Amino acid sequence: MGRWGPDARGRLERAAMELYEERGYEQTTVAEIAARAGLTERTFFRHFTDKREVLFGGAGILQERVVTGVLDASASATPLQAVMAALNHAGRLFGETPTRSRQRQRIIDATPELQARELSKLSTVAGATADALRQRGVPDPAATLTAEVGIVAFRTAFGHWISDPAERPWSDHLHEALDGLHAVMTGR
Amino acid sequence: MGRWGPDARGRLERAAMELYEERGYEQTTVAEIAARAGLTERTFFRHFTDKREVLFGGAGILQERVVTGVLDASASATPLQAVMAALNHAGRLFGETPTRSRQRQRIIDATPELQARELSKLSTVAGATADALRQRGVPDPAATLTAEVGIVAFRTAFGHWISDPAERPWSDHLHEALDGLHAVMTGR
Repeated sequence: MGRWGPDARGRLERAAMELYEERGYEQTTVAEIAARAGLTERTFFRHFTDKREVLFGGAGILQERVVTGVLDASASATPLQAVMAALNHAGRLFGETPTRSRQRQRIIDATPELQARELSKLSTVAGATADALRQRGVPDPAATLTAEVGIVAFRTAFGHWISDPAERPWSDHLHEALDGLHAVMTGR
Repeated sequence: MGRWGPDARGRLERAAMELYEERGYEQTTVAEIAARAGLTERTFFRHFTDKREVLFGGAGILQERVVTGVLDASASATPLQAVMAALNHAGRLFGETPTRSRQRQRIIDATPELQARELSKLSTVAGATADALRQRGVPDPAATLTAEVGIVAFRTAFGHWISDPAERPWSDHLHEALDGLHAVMTGR
């Protein structure tokens, strides 16, 4: 076993999340995270740029999954079907149960700076999704609107998924959000 | 004429916007804004909390207009109709021509901090709109989804309104955004 131990990144992440919940994100230092994980600050900085990246390090992977999902969707899929298929696929990143996502959301909800970062992240994912739709030949404004609607479905589904006591799967919540959007648009 | 002169707020606002464009938002100081307007820093702080508020001072009025518009919409209006009527009404805040809104958007687009603030502002307006819908008896998730869809229409219409060389009115762009959303949802 090397001096960083097995799964240093996972240990740092778990230590950080615990401390963000116990003390608050702003009050937690990298030194404390490293100490809780039994590692050094230097090791922390080998894995994360800063303490915010512990919470947002997955943003790039999420975006890449959504973009790939849109580009790989069946040629016969409508723009919205392509985006929904991509978001369904991307949901696998969250894991089988919402325990970790729920903890992350509690931390974000408690800190305005993190809420702003989360909004920026989703706005960037929406922009990349619209770009992917344009690559499929979808014109504007349809590309932008479809991507934005997809992100609304994503956020709604995410909120319901992490607060569902029955822990029904991500895809159920995503389909319900889409059904809800259809109902809104048709005035039912 | 008092020592603050007529329309001190308007003069400060115009001076600030000019400087944000010429030098960049981050590089501009309150002292420079006051000097350009021919006023003192003290006068600036009578009208604005800080230099960011010059750009976001209208957020509260926008939100209030949208909320009032939703609550005052005809009892027979669907949730989406109520939100669209409110957004149409709120558009009058922007003025007849998009000149000032266009300038404001250029400044925001140039500064990540301001982009994040704009996203937060619209997220807050969406939350208040969903609350207003709940007051009309709209249950969730319809209230949240309708408000979020309304904000997507709002943002899209705004982007088109400020970049329309023909300067067609706000309501035209808002209706086109709604038509675009219908097309997205029905896969046309």
